[in-house]
Amino acid sequence: MPSTGRPDQKPRLYLLGAGVSFPEHLTLRTLDILAACNRICSNLPQSDLDLLPSNLRSKCRSLWSIYQENRNRTENYMDVSQAVLQAADTEPPVAWLTPGHPLIFDSVSQNLLKSGRARGWNVEVEPAISCVDTILAEVGYDPANGLLIYEAYALVMQRLPIIPSSATLLLQPSAFGSDLTHYQSQWAPDLSPLRDYLLRYFNSAHPCAFVRSHSLRGAAPQICWKPLGELASASAQDTAGSTLFVPSAQSAGSAGQQQGAP
Amino acid sequence: MPSTGRPDQKPRLYLLGAGVSFPEHLTLRTLDILAACNRICSNLPQSDLDLLPSNLRSKCRSLWSIYQENRNRTENYMDVSQAVLQAADTEPPVAWLTPGHPLIFDSVSQNLLKSGRARGWNVEVEPAISCVDTILAEVGYDPANGLLIYEAYALVMQRLPIIPSSATLLLQPSAFGSDLTHYQSQWAPDLSPLRDYLLRYFNSAHPCAFVRSHSLRGAAPQICWKPLGELASASAQDTAGSTLFVPSAQSAGSAGQQQGAP
Repeated sequence: MPSTGRPDQKPRLYLLGAGVSFPEHLTLRTLDILAACNRICSNLPQSDLDLLPSNLRSKCRSLWSIYQENRNRTENYMDVSQAVLQAADTEPPVAWLTPGHPLIFDSVSQNLLKSGRARGWNVEVEPAISCVDTILAEVGYDPANGLLIYEAYALVMQRLPIIPSSATLLLQPSAFGSDLTHYQSQWAPDLSPLRDYLLRYFNSAHPCAFVRSHSLRGAAPQICWKPLGELASASAQDTAGSTLFVPSAQSAGSAGQQQGAP
Repeated sequence: MPSTGRPDQKPRLYLLGAGVSFPEHLTLRTLDILAACNRICSNLPQSDLDLLPSNLRSKCRSLWSIYQENRNRTENYMDVSQAVLQAADTEPPVAWLTPGHPLIFDSVSQNLLKSGRARGWNVEVEPAISCVDTILAEVGYDPANGLLIYEAYALVMQRLPIIPSSATLLLQPSAFGSDLTHYQSQWAPDLSPLRDYLLRYFNSAHPCAFVRSHSLRGAAPQICWKPLGELASASAQDTAGSTLFVPSAQSAGSAGQQQGAP
């Protein structure tokens, strides 16, 4: 799917998504590409990569050790990108396999796309199942009625506009207010600035849901409904790995009821 | 992934997505569920269903014949829903397999979710690759910078607000202004009301792209850039099956350049 770059050449680097639930969200096409690559670089933990069939497993290189705890996220991303570019330089074709969809909230993939194309490489991006896909499935919401997607912290910092007549998905509430990485520690964000910002648009009884999709086969998703006024009382466990779903002002009553909101 | 309904019961009805490019966008999980169902109802054409492995093919029932040309879309959708509910009633578990993601712009799936749960059934929705996923991959845009999704005709009819600082995806421009079905005929919509509405937010040189993802293996996506002022000159071929990508006001210059806009 080479939309730009050098479509006349074979891809040197594939940006692939592992989906939210691994390995069951892998598509047939992604599996075919993985099989055709010489090297699979990934930020999935080794325990996930061990679930792949042996012909793929032997080509995998987990870059997880490059992500350092309590470090600035951007610095980690640059180091990981550098390692993938180096692999694509020396043993192409290379696959970068990242959780979710490669271009939905993924700074490393965005770096790789720009850097790879700047080098004249054919970089192919393949779609995959993202947290947007799983959350819409879990809350039963069709974006035909309007959907706005933001990063939770950017919304508040940049004072971005909300459209109360549309539903809103706010990604990464668990990292709200922090540039550092919190892979292992249960760091709890202070969501009161987010609550106060949303209160400009919705009343304090407006139901909001922290949705965490299951990442293990058979595990149920976690949907934690809170009235907006109590958003900041969410625990680290409620917010970890979640996305915040804010129904539209009109449908809030029915959406909340339908999903078992209090 | 039973978020509501009767999670204690086994699902009677699965709402599944075929992805945009069939069958290569099918996930391992979707294939597992299809194998476990007694009946697969689908609105994919028979020629697509024939691509499935024989153990699945023999269980398929294409409901494509229910979709009547030049009829009100809603009436077609009700008849198809009715046929699926009947199958789920008599030979469960049943899968409904629809193009894209089952809850992204899919009235039949939304009907089935509501009607099934109203009957006390456990209806399970599985995420799949939608046109939102393919288009973001094709234009190389990460919604971390903000993304607003609307139905193109609803935007204009309901005078919904646009946020120029975010990118916008407008779905189904090919059906703009028509409630009728145009499966076979090359019906060209009059997009001038859409152009005029968007001109309230962007200047006439603002680049917009009709993106049609490839639905056949190996086929390249079609990305047709137009300055907003010339939106209504798009041909039926440009718009058929496409989604309109409108970059943010800030990034329009670079986005256009990056994607080869004129």
